[in-house]
Amino acid sequence: MKKYSFKNDYSEGAHPNLLNALNDTNFIQTEGYSTDIFCLEASKILKNKIGKDDIDIHFVSGGTQANLIMISSALRPYESVISATTGHINIHEAGAIESTGHKINSIDTSAGKLTPELVEEILKFHTDEHMVKPKLVYISNSTEVGTIYKKHDLEALFEICRKYDLYLVMDGARLGSALTSPFNDLSLNDIANLCDMFYIGGTKNGALIGEAIIITNSKLKDDFRYHIKQKGGLIAKGRIFGIQFIELFKENLYFDLANHSNRMALKLAEGIKQLGFSFLYPPESNQIFPIFPKRLIDILLESFDFYIWKVIDEEHYAVRLVTSWATKENKIDEFLSIIQSFA
Amino acid sequence: MKKYSFKNDYSEGAHPNLLNALNDTNFIQTEGYSTDIFCLEASKILKNKIGKDDIDIHFVSGGTQANLIMISSALRPYESVISATTGHINIHEAGAIESTGHKINSIDTSAGKLTPELVEEILKFHTDEHMVKPKLVYISNSTEVGTIYKKHDLEALFEICRKYDLYLVMDGARLGSALTSPFNDLSLNDIANLCDMFYIGGTKNGALIGEAIIITNSKLKDDFRYHIKQKGGLIAKGRIFGIQFIELFKENLYFDLANHSNRMALKLAEGIKQLGFSFLYPPESNQIFPIFPKRLIDILLESFDFYIWKVIDEEHYAVRLVTSWATKENKIDEFLSIIQSFA
Amino acid sequence: MKKYSFKNDYSEGAHPNLLNALNDTNFIQTEGYSTDIFCLEASKILKNKIGKDDIDIHFVSGGTQANLIMISSALRPYESVISATTGHINIHEAGAIESTGHKINSIDTSAGKLTPELVEEILKFHTDEHMVKPKLVYISNSTEVGTIYKKHDLEALFEICRKYDLYLVMDGARLGSALTSPFNDLSLNDIANLCDMFYIGGTKNGALIGEAIIITNSKLKDDFRYHIKQKGGLIAKGRIFGIQFIELFKENLYFDLANHSNRMALKLAEGIKQLGFSFLYPPESNQIFPIFPKRLIDILLESFDFYIWKVIDEEHYAVRLVTSWATKENKIDEFLSIIQSFA
Amino acid sequence: MKKYSFKNDYSEGAHPNLLNALNDTNFIQTEGYSTDIFCLEASKILKNKIGKDDIDIHFVSGGTQANLIMISSALRPYESVISATTGHINIHEAGAIESTGHKINSIDTSAGKLTPELVEEILKFHTDEHMVKPKLVYISNSTEVGTIYKKHDLEALFEICRKYDLYLVMDGARLGSALTSPFNDLSLNDIANLCDMFYIGGTKNGALIGEAIIITNSKLKDDFRYHIKQKGGLIAKGRIFGIQFIELFKENLYFDLANHSNRMALKLAEGIKQLGFSFLYPPESNQIFPIFPKRLIDILLESFDFYIWKVIDEEHYAVRLVTSWATKENKIDEFLSIIQSFA
Repeated sequence: MKKYSFKNDYSEGAHPNLLNALNDTNFIQTEGYSTDIFCLEASKILKNKIGKDDIDIHFVSGGTQANLIMISSALRPYESVISATTGHINIHEAGAIESTGHKINSIDTSAGKLTPELVEEILKFHTDEHMVKPKLVYISNSTEVGTIYKKHDLEALFEICRKYDLYLVMDGARLGSALTSPFNDLSLNDIANLCDMFYIGGTKNGALIGEAIIITNSKLKDDFRYHIKQKGGLIAKGRIFGIQFIELFKENLYFDLANHSNRMALKLAEGIKQLGFSFLYPPESNQIFPIFPKRLIDILLESFDFYIWKVIDEEHYAVRLVTSWATKENKIDEFLSIIQSFA
Repeated sequence: MKKYSFKNDYSEGAHPNLLNALNDTNFIQTEGYSTDIFCLEASKILKNKIGKDDIDIHFVSGGTQANLIMISSALRPYESVISATTGHINIHEAGAIESTGHKINSIDTSAGKLTPELVEEILKFHTDEHMVKPKLVYISNSTEVGTIYKKHDLEALFEICRKYDLYLVMDGARLGSALTSPFNDLSLNDIANLCDMFYIGGTKNGALIGEAIIITNSKLKDDFRYHIKQKGGLIAKGRIFGIQFIELFKENLYFDLANHSNRMALKLAEGIKQLGFSFLYPPESNQIFPIFPKRLIDILLESFDFYIWKVIDEEHYAVRLVTSWATKENKIDEFLSIIQSFA
Repeated sequence: MKKYSFKNDYSEGAHPNLLNALNDTNFIQTEGYSTDIFCLEASKILKNKIGKDDIDIHFVSGGTQANLIMISSALRPYESVISATTGHINIHEAGAIESTGHKINSIDTSAGKLTPELVEEILKFHTDEHMVKPKLVYISNSTEVGTIYKKHDLEALFEICRKYDLYLVMDGARLGSALTSPFNDLSLNDIANLCDMFYIGGTKNGALIGEAIIITNSKLKDDFRYHIKQKGGLIAKGRIFGIQFIELFKENLYFDLANHSNRMALKLAEGIKQLGFSFLYPPESNQIFPIFPKRLIDILLESFDFYIWKVIDEEHYAVRLVTSWATKENKIDEFLSIIQSFA
Repeated sequence: MKKYSFKNDYSEGAHPNLLNALNDTNFIQTEGYSTDIFCLEASKILKNKIGKDDIDIHFVSGGTQANLIMISSALRPYESVISATTGHINIHEAGAIESTGHKINSIDTSAGKLTPELVEEILKFHTDEHMVKPKLVYISNSTEVGTIYKKHDLEALFEICRKYDLYLVMDGARLGSALTSPFNDLSLNDIANLCDMFYIGGTKNGALIGEAIIITNSKLKDDFRYHIKQKGGLIAKGRIFGIQFIELFKENLYFDLANHSNRMALKLAEGIKQLGFSFLYPPESNQIFPIFPKRLIDILLESFDFYIWKVIDEEHYAVRLVTSWATKENKIDEFLSIIQSFA
């Protein structure tokens, strides 16, 4: 690709520290399948960062895999998942959840976020054994449209889940970006206290590959490695997850990288806003959705790669711009200056 | 681990060339999900090495994943898989194939290898719609017990599969070791001509992570990426598979590494034989199964790690010794000298 | 139940002719699993009534079973089903379709009926392998809200399905009522020409138990009995389906019964309309949905059983009234006279 | 069929009492889906016959359905079922259990019966999360080869299941025949005390259609109707199960019918034995497996229908002869006299 890409946050490899660590540990012999010393060390570090000790940690190689394993492990066959219509599991996982036998009860949301009211609306509709039984609430943080859950949002979902005996599961593919958003007031510890299960995404925040599943609800811990194995998620050289997560979390790298990503996105958003353009969703993290005239989009596409997200009207589209830990600030400036020239 | 390990062939990281390549390409922006230039290049190189152009190549992160995706993609719901009782899918994948809805028809074999007679025995037993319909023959090369398929073995299976309209699928987790065995007479091209689908294992032969699925039967090619995605096997930074397979196959590294691994195993086997011990299975590749007295095993376990495989009698066990691309020759010598001291 | 029930069309047993036939044939020995002479004879009669010979006919014991077997037999794992949000498979089968691994793409409709535009809307949204691939259009005739597909409706769906290579499958749990509606212009032959698969419901139109699946698309015929068996639908004394369907179709009983059911429902609807009440959906078959004041509903519920379907406003509910082949006309009169007294 | 059939025990319809009861109750309106007064009454009667009140009872339409619903309801995704190799679920249900995602661990048995030793052999082999986790022991009584479990057999299995926290589930497709065998010392109450779940087969002992699932372990009771519905087993006119089981169990009909069936089989077995022939399995219930010369079989097949079961040697086959509640004694005599003429 000659054009600079704002298509996603997995366009580059890994942060150099992670590659160096893979290199440095390369000839140390270890056990297989994530039972090695590096995975153990990474778990210890993560427990410390999360501030909870009675949690289980597992590593898998991708987000769809994490979601399908977490969800299918928690449900009986007739139980279903509540998700925003825009939820990743509902539209961008090729039916992975249904492939494990479970229906997704989807519902339209404002800006990709579920609320207690929406959850209750679905529950009220499901009355007897002729219907599925909703049992798990799936959310993403940040959401598929870049918005984030605030502490009161998550607390409200936690309460409705306790009330109706539902599990609350968070897809954290972009959890780094959510937690370092200037609008965020949640900590990893909050999330661990409010969710039954979640995963911390590595791939989209500086890792080569790897996501860390955190199980806080002890009812969901038993035999979890069987679930991972059965779904093809147990990786022989699981050490590569441990080695990378040690680097990301032994100090503050994970948050530093996410912070850079957000800073780039929000600088871009601020610039776009000042040049007079509006947004499909409020810019809160590393995915932003400005609305541009088609002519401007054509010009921008000469130098940059990004996705057209939605037709607004005959003359305007919303586009998706994604930044990452590796985004170069001068490319942000360049992008803005093209818009400025146009405006 | 302080003790030197012969437990498996995934105890170390990756061959340095692969790590270097990951490093060198790290900041090149690419498309996601294995549609990047590296995966394209790796596919081109593999097609060249295989000597066939009309094949499809896909990358996934592990062997169980490769097996469950290949097999479930090829079968209708009531169709089943024929496998040796010792087959990896039958005992060491936690029911992954059944999890996709398919029965495995297992049958006892000599030294882990299926034969046309065994396949026919299963077919004759399955007569009507009250039973599953066997449709796919699954073999591993090398097998779970280190033996390999010779050309006439594979040709015979190919013919029986054509006769009964069955698919022939090869699990190549250790294909490198099979193809560089001194007893081997198969080429990659032969395998591509005789199998409908197979995978070339990276993880157990020098890669950090990654297996290459090769589809030769055009009936099995359609929409294969949907299958990968639905089962959680489509990886955002799929580039890491491409980058590694380029290194493994652009020249001869894949075979050189496997050759080293075999050479270490067969030196060990030869030494053990000369010291008067016998084997549970004939040593043909990088997994060997000598039968030792318990007292010798106890002594060896003080300096080495390996699995006890099978109780032979009150005084003797068969053990499994696995070498790899990274095995150090002086450790082979050390192991043999302990045996010699004992004998 | 002391109160007369308009809750559904399966409150009574079977039409006496069917019971008599079960009795008369009782001691004739037959083969099992629907390979008996009665099932063969019923198939011959049905082919004749449908006016097509190159179709396959199978019998199963219920509608959910028919739907899940038909749909799962036709799809590859990542393929999905398009259905109205109100579709039976989408809300009233406890996730049976998802249990076979397939996503339902549901979409809101007017009066429960899919249109080519709605089908295209779903297709346009599904662009690549990160999403499921819609492959089958599921409709019910009559629909879950009592409306029916007219010939031009079905022809239009047929065309869109041909255009995009989709299967068209009709749930005919209440096909008798649909085909004998005064608003109907479809024949069994039309349906067989326009659908790839459908079933003719026995249970809700005079049978004790049993539905007849008709496969018209030869691509969907192979090994269908395996699918039935695997899903638990192959019944040892399958003869009871054959015996009943012979009675229903050897002359005109099936249509006479449905006609009675419709006549009762539409007499009720006409009476209700004349008394000044409106309907949630246009009354077209044996399910009608008048909107009544709550006070009237309370009075009616003293003598009759029926479901409250939907809250319209604080003072009004829509109710569902279902008639059947066994509905007594004097109960219709009685119901209407209560309304008249109220008004 | 002009020839008299000993092929199975479902060649005829239902016992006349059941047909009469269906007739007598035909126009009584009831609730649907087995929530009607007849199913409630049948449950009450069954609880009384079983001598336990804290059990749940559900009705489904066939044995494969009963097995797949019972087993899939009890297991988590990676858990497996232990079964005799000859078990119905293992060979004669077209992969129905695997279709729900679960592996069957099959093991060769003597005369179709599992023992604690065989169960332990399987358990010992399954050591970690790379393998499935056996969780449920499936047995049939009578077995697929006509043998029965005696009280001490079942107690021993019960104990091993308690020891290893396994569920014990009995397939009672032919439970009537087992319980009325002259060799039997088990009661329904014993079975309810020793099994976590079982079903009482109606179809093969005088019913048109219908099996009664009995759940004794309260951990397995929750939401069972959801499982039935999701798998297509909830039947609109569920009343037909209730009506039939009332007739079968309100007095002693179920056992009288089974007793007749056994008496016919064992008279046949005794006659065959006296004429000098041996058996593949000991004749204990309504399925017997005599070994005949091929020439005799050819002669018998001129007047009778039955299955050839197994090739013994070039000159001899074992055949399967099945009697039922409807078997005519003069046909037994006729069959024996043909053999006598031959001998």
